[in-house]
Amino acid sequence: MSQATVSRVLSGTVQVSEHTREAVMRALEITGYVPNASARTMRSGRTGSIGVVVTHMTNPFYPHLLEALSNAIHHVGHRMIVWDGRRDGETDAVSAIREKAVDSVIFTTATPDSGPLHEALRQQLPVVLVNRSLPRLPCDSVTSDNVAGASSVARYLVEGGRRRIAMIGGLRGSSTADERLRGFRSGLKRAGQATKELALVSGDWAYDEGVRCARELLASSARPPDALFCANDVLAFGAIDAARAAGCRVPDDLWVVGYDDISISSWGAYDLTTMRQPLREMADEAIELALRRLDDPERPPVRRRLTSELVVRGSTARHAAPGG
Amino acid sequence: MSQATVSRVLSGTVQVSEHTREAVMRALEITGYVPNASARTMRSGRTGSIGVVVTHMTNPFYPHLLEALSNAIHHVGHRMIVWDGRRDGETDAVSAIREKAVDSVIFTTATPDSGPLHEALRQQLPVVLVNRSLPRLPCDSVTSDNVAGASSVARYLVEGGRRRIAMIGGLRGSSTADERLRGFRSGLKRAGQATKELALVSGDWAYDEGVRCARELLASSARPPDALFCANDVLAFGAIDAARAAGCRVPDDLWVVGYDDISISSWGAYDLTTMRQPLREMADEAIELALRRLDDPERPPVRRRLTSELVVRGSTARHAAPGG
Repeated sequence: MSQATVSRVLSGTVQVSEHTREAVMRALEITGYVPNASARTMRSGRTGSIGVVVTHMTNPFYPHLLEALSNAIHHVGHRMIVWDGRRDGETDAVSAIREKAVDSVIFTTATPDSGPLHEALRQQLPVVLVNRSLPRLPCDSVTSDNVAGASSVARYLVEGGRRRIAMIGGLRGSSTADERLRGFRSGLKRAGQATKELALVSGDWAYDEGVRCARELLASSARPPDALFCANDVLAFGAIDAARAAGCRVPDDLWVVGYDDISISSWGAYDLTTMRQPLREMADEAIELALRRLDDPERPPVRRRLTSELVVRGSTARHAAPGG
Repeated sequence: MSQATVSRVLSGTVQVSEHTREAVMRALEITGYVPNASARTMRSGRTGSIGVVVTHMTNPFYPHLLEALSNAIHHVGHRMIVWDGRRDGETDAVSAIREKAVDSVIFTTATPDSGPLHEALRQQLPVVLVNRSLPRLPCDSVTSDNVAGASSVARYLVEGGRRRIAMIGGLRGSSTADERLRGFRSGLKRAGQATKELALVSGDWAYDEGVRCARELLASSARPPDALFCANDVLAFGAIDAARAAGCRVPDDLWVVGYDDISISSWGAYDLTTMRQPLREMADEAIELALRRLDDPERPPVRRRLTSELVVRGSTARHAAPGG
């Protein structure tokens, strides 16, 4: 009995024995069938759901990314199933592809040591990375160009006359942290600043880590930094609060630059100069890649890198963002 | 053919004609059947998914609630499907119950004029309100006790010697805004403050509204307020920034109190005294009510109100929170 025949059984346009019809209907019913829900699945073999694994929902960056993904997923008429990566979410999400509860899964906080991600790729299950990329894995990914973005921040600080530049990096081993550090180093070098002098501490993307790292930088240096690049906005908020608590004026004594441009960055208390990631475009591209991967599982992996833009605000003395 | 018989067809422990077996298997296959995914549905008639409708993911309150719901839903072994209430999310979520894509739906921003919610209740579909309650609707709900909480804030401010007290209310018509206003008024009255003197403006729960409302309150009064109660933390952040921009010192000139205790409230820039909602307990109770409703669709609606707690920080002069 073909799929088309089952469709005709359901629509009543074909004659089958009452026993067969009842068996079909009963089987459909106990799998949760009602006509509307399964019509699309019957036509396309798809669930109409896309999974998202997100790790720190209350870190203010992720709700922005999650909202952008929600918009993109609902825009293509799909449902969004969300897992928390801290609680076996990666494992559950990959299982959900196998169990046909979702068509594919978007990973927002992938790292090279993610077992479930490796397993998914080994089994050629459809997954897409967004915000993170893993160059050694054969996997679709969408990020902003973190190397170029951080390099542009370095140029902006040097052109602004900053000479004792420090950085608070993100969690080491994540592509976002590693690429922003690499880009910042190369940007400083290109602008004629000796990068070996770069004071660097690393935190876990969180406010408290920004406070801790900034305290360390301000206390340990005989000559305290006159500029601080933070690998994300939330670290920068912590750094600004720590600097102020230490009697250091922002931007008079210390320029602070973040990365992301989440909504809090424009709030009066922080007024943060930051590199804006194009989250909406990143989310749209990720969902487009997810759908294309379903249509053509054999296509070569695509890595998209979108351009970021420096937004200059009051945490640095105002002057134009660099042209390049 | 009974459900048990279909199970035996699948497990191979019963003899049926090859034609019937093939029809059953084909029907199961085209509805997305794989053994793991459907085993639970076959046993229980449940999808194993719970829907959540959330309206402002980037308003920092909602990620806290969403994370708490995610934890509660995954704790009971279910999946969480998320809809954005601004984009037909309520309609889609209610449809998903009918289509058996989710077992039930949690509404986090319900208002009395929600058409899809009324429709769901009319059809006796399983929905639970969390954070909001609608007293006239026969519906399970979990909130904190907003009336008692706001009343307690009023008592704290009066006991702290504040005499020109103003309030920035939330969006009128939402139970959270209406209950906090009512509780605050009654608390002031009980503490001997004339509530007709209460300066009140209302905003839409967002930072920019807090800025706008605080500016209005500080500019319009011949005698500016010496205390400001904001119906949520995000409004309070805007109010603090607006007050500082107007040269008003917090807490020396103006005490500011929020509601929720989201993580930003403890950040150095705001250090906000606020009423802490027990989000984790609220989420756990909501999911428990959702599961109970599935087990017993006829049970009378339950309204749970959990106790909040005042957290005193630097946005008010420090003294003990009221005992009651």
